[in-house]
Amino acid sequence: MAKLKSVTVGFLGGVGEIGKNMTVLGFGNKYMIVDAGQSFPTEDTPGIDNVIPDMTFVRENCGNIVGLFLTHGHEDHIGAVPYLLQEFDLHVYGSDLTIALLQSKLEERKIKSNKLHVVKAGDVTVANPFKVEYIHVCHSIAGAFALSVTTPAGVVFFTGDYKFDYTPPEGGLTDIPRLSRIGDRGVLLMLGESTNVEREGSTVSERMVGENFDMLFDDNASRRIIVATFASNVNRLQQIINTAVKYRRKVAFGGRSMVKIAEIGRQLGLLHVAPESLVDIDKINKVPDEELVIVSTGSQGEQMSALTRMAAGEYNKIHLGANDTVIISASPIPGNERSVYSVINNLCRLGCKVVYHTLKDIHVSGHAHREELKLMLSLVRPKMFIPVHGEYRHLTMHADLAETMGVARRNILIPEIGALVRVNARGVKRIGSIPAGNTYIDGDESGEDSMEMIIRDRRQLASDGLVLVFVSVRLSDGKLASAPEVLLRGVAAADDFVNDVKADIQQVMAKERYTDPDKRGALKSKLGRAVRNRARQYMHSLPMVVPVIVEV
Amino acid sequence: MAKLKSVTVGFLGGVGEIGKNMTVLGFGNKYMIVDAGQSFPTEDTPGIDNVIPDMTFVRENCGNIVGLFLTHGHEDHIGAVPYLLQEFDLHVYGSDLTIALLQSKLEERKIKSNKLHVVKAGDVTVANPFKVEYIHVCHSIAGAFALSVTTPAGVVFFTGDYKFDYTPPEGGLTDIPRLSRIGDRGVLLMLGESTNVEREGSTVSERMVGENFDMLFDDNASRRIIVATFASNVNRLQQIINTAVKYRRKVAFGGRSMVKIAEIGRQLGLLHVAPESLVDIDKINKVPDEELVIVSTGSQGEQMSALTRMAAGEYNKIHLGANDTVIISASPIPGNERSVYSVINNLCRLGCKVVYHTLKDIHVSGHAHREELKLMLSLVRPKMFIPVHGEYRHLTMHADLAETMGVARRNILIPEIGALVRVNARGVKRIGSIPAGNTYIDGDESGEDSMEMIIRDRRQLASDGLVLVFVSVRLSDGKLASAPEVLLRGVAAADDFVNDVKADIQQVMAKERYTDPDKRGALKSKLGRAVRNRARQYMHSLPMVVPVIVEV
Repeated sequence: MAKLKSVTVGFLGGVGEIGKNMTVLGFGNKYMIVDAGQSFPTEDTPGIDNVIPDMTFVRENCGNIVGLFLTHGHEDHIGAVPYLLQEFDLHVYGSDLTIALLQSKLEERKIKSNKLHVVKAGDVTVANPFKVEYIHVCHSIAGAFALSVTTPAGVVFFTGDYKFDYTPPEGGLTDIPRLSRIGDRGVLLMLGESTNVEREGSTVSERMVGENFDMLFDDNASRRIIVATFASNVNRLQQIINTAVKYRRKVAFGGRSMVKIAEIGRQLGLLHVAPESLVDIDKINKVPDEELVIVSTGSQGEQMSALTRMAAGEYNKIHLGANDTVIISASPIPGNERSVYSVINNLCRLGCKVVYHTLKDIHVSGHAHREELKLMLSLVRPKMFIPVHGEYRHLTMHADLAETMGVARRNILIPEIGALVRVNARGVKRIGSIPAGNTYIDGDESGEDSMEMIIRDRRQLASDGLVLVFVSVRLSDGKLASAPEVLLRGVAAADDFVNDVKADIQQVMAKERYTDPDKRGALKSKLGRAVRNRARQYMHSLPMVVPVIVEV
Repeated sequence: MAKLKSVTVGFLGGVGEIGKNMTVLGFGNKYMIVDAGQSFPTEDTPGIDNVIPDMTFVRENCGNIVGLFLTHGHEDHIGAVPYLLQEFDLHVYGSDLTIALLQSKLEERKIKSNKLHVVKAGDVTVANPFKVEYIHVCHSIAGAFALSVTTPAGVVFFTGDYKFDYTPPEGGLTDIPRLSRIGDRGVLLMLGESTNVEREGSTVSERMVGENFDMLFDDNASRRIIVATFASNVNRLQQIINTAVKYRRKVAFGGRSMVKIAEIGRQLGLLHVAPESLVDIDKINKVPDEELVIVSTGSQGEQMSALTRMAAGEYNKIHLGANDTVIISASPIPGNERSVYSVINNLCRLGCKVVYHTLKDIHVSGHAHREELKLMLSLVRPKMFIPVHGEYRHLTMHADLAETMGVARRNILIPEIGALVRVNARGVKRIGSIPAGNTYIDGDESGEDSMEMIIRDRRQLASDGLVLVFVSVRLSDGKLASAPEVLLRGVAAADDFVNDVKADIQQVMAKERYTDPDKRGALKSKLGRAVRNRARQYMHSLPMVVPVIVEV
């Protein structure tokens, strides 16, 4: 009997969390990677610029990685690629827009690669032992693919991020007939995105957003209009431009990434706009309000974005006021609510009319709702199913949904980050772990363990502050050379506390004969303990205590 | 001609922000206060326990304050009262539940007052020159009032927090006929809550939640049921109890505040439950799963709450698993989303079935939607209108809505925090400012300026960490007594950085003749500058630099 052929799947990110999607598919000792994204820092990781997946697995297997395949150009799918390419010389495959966005990131960091490959829907890349076919899907960015990977063990299907839009304004429908034919030939395993599994029904077409723009432009005919949206949603930009042209308005782009992506979109032929419809942001003061639309970044209330600065009155190119209508064509990503509302409040204070998601449908999600998830399962008809891209609750619900769609429960696996899973015709099974977790990027520094510790420190400092005590000791007799010093930072405490701490230190030192610098650790512990005991009396939560001994 | 009589209104909180509602109404030199609430700390105020309004105005006028009138017992309306009563011996008026909740807060802090007055709907308190009538309104807590205040200048109407529920399960309807009669007699000014002005239509009745509980209890007949909700929503608790009794389940209360409020509710006759329907949380292991409901705190993912600890497997009284259905009967308050979802993910990991707001209607808001705001304006028919309780965007929208309802634009004022407003038959006008802002409470310490600084410190520490340098100097010759020490906390940097900093310090000290302790400040600045310059080379953002000089 021939040996049963298996693939392995390793989860480096994007499962049990939102963000930093990265999956490894293996056959024998060969691997391919699907996506390498970043997460965004939160209040739990103060001061961190970027969070990317642990790259240990890639490092250990880099000679056997046949390629990195990108489903689309959003940050949570390509944001870690520059860090990867800095270290490893991988072949990278993606659509024209995906590769262009990646290239612009690489240029910023001065990273060079001659292994970037632009592919298009319908193409097949042979990267033995894998054969990867790209299938066009609708999403909130152009050039998005699902991947159908033929391996000696069977077909593994990655949905990527997708939705079914039957009337997309640009780019064509999700390729339903192709998905169905792939299903006809038999799919061993599908990895399906789960972002919107909590939402009933189907997403609304991107075209509806265009229709609402039309109404808003009509209602605000005498006013200047500012639209904030995600720069990468080129189809949305096109709809704004089309509406502007219809209402005889010129378009100006505000914000660095908006200008950049608009340029990339035009170069790739994804964004159609006549030069006479555009006006440079520096020259908008010559255009009457009713003949201008400013398309800007900042729909998430990002601190340095164009809209946030306009709202705070800190953007010297544009001053907003009572004749401005600001349309925020996006929903707040969970966690960004407070920033977004703070921008809206500032805009209201300036007297602007503000139109945002709670008031009007001026944004649609790029992720399939439940009925669309069911349609994908009906087309692909996989034998095994693994839900991906979502927090644990999403994965659980998507697993339940796949079961109701006829996938046997034993053929469904809910992955955790770092899981290594074996899949063959007999089943899907977790067989071990691979190194996985967060790598924090703080400026140019990065690391796993040390950054974890640093972030822990920062969190304690942030919540409880710091008490420093300085003790200068004469090594000749082990006695204090000068009075101890106590310094507080971020601590609310009375002078009494400082005096008490000084007395405590004197008392500790009175019992000490510190003549041996090797015992510095022990003395530090004693001092730390004394200070913490005292702090307990004065405060409900303990600050970080740092004793410093200077020998003279 | 008789002099035109005016009232003044001062805004100590709750306008341009959510939380810490507190308003002062003045006539002549006499004042009454409506509510004194707290806000909740956010990631911008790390380690802070509580945020309350600035009390300077109260302090300066305390001899002339005739009473503190509480509309209802939520924290954002009564949370600052203990701090007030600690300092000022005020008369306080509120419903039975409001006063009972306040009393329990006062007991915790060992504050005594013999001036707490329980009043009921229809009562009138004469506190010259004001006559305050209490009007029953529906809200997400029992015992909620609107206040109609008769002054020599006219009637000032405070809506408090409210909604119109035509089929409330308990407590009766918002008193529409009474509101209408107050409107008949003429109202000079209405202060209207604005929380849900963005929401179209009307709130759903609390009764609907009960109906959905019924369906969920039916669907989960063989499973243990845990319901998490706001403890203070006594009507919600009653509905859970009623459903439990119907399905022959016993009820256990989990979480300190749930136990406490259930007890208060029973004492006041607001919560009806037969002793045999209850079971102590310590004895639930003797009750079969299908005969038990646990009602618990933690619907906002609060860190120390019963549900959060259960979900993390850290609550020794209850261990959750595959036979548990957890119903989270609340929506996340903006800002709490991540905590709430983290609890839900943990519950999913334990194998629980979780029912939450995105999946089912198991919560309704206690705040009037747009149609209800319009109804309130139609009943009260104020001449002047001031929108309150909301961020700036809410206040703006509510002002617009009042205008469409016929209030003249010139008679509408959008208040900012600290505004002092004069209102008389001729108009509403901002005439000045009163001290207002955040007072931060950290344990027992409080303060304005110093806490602002402490919070700024904590924020910098949190985002960029700390570099400490210790220099011990011999005053006899002004030279270093020992090698400088450098300590990093929360900073990502290589050893090179530390070595470079040490060299920098040596260099600074080589040029110094530090024999005069009075020049300590100047030397510190020099050292700080040197270290920051070096840090700029290594890091993209500057840590806090603390130079310490020890003289020997």
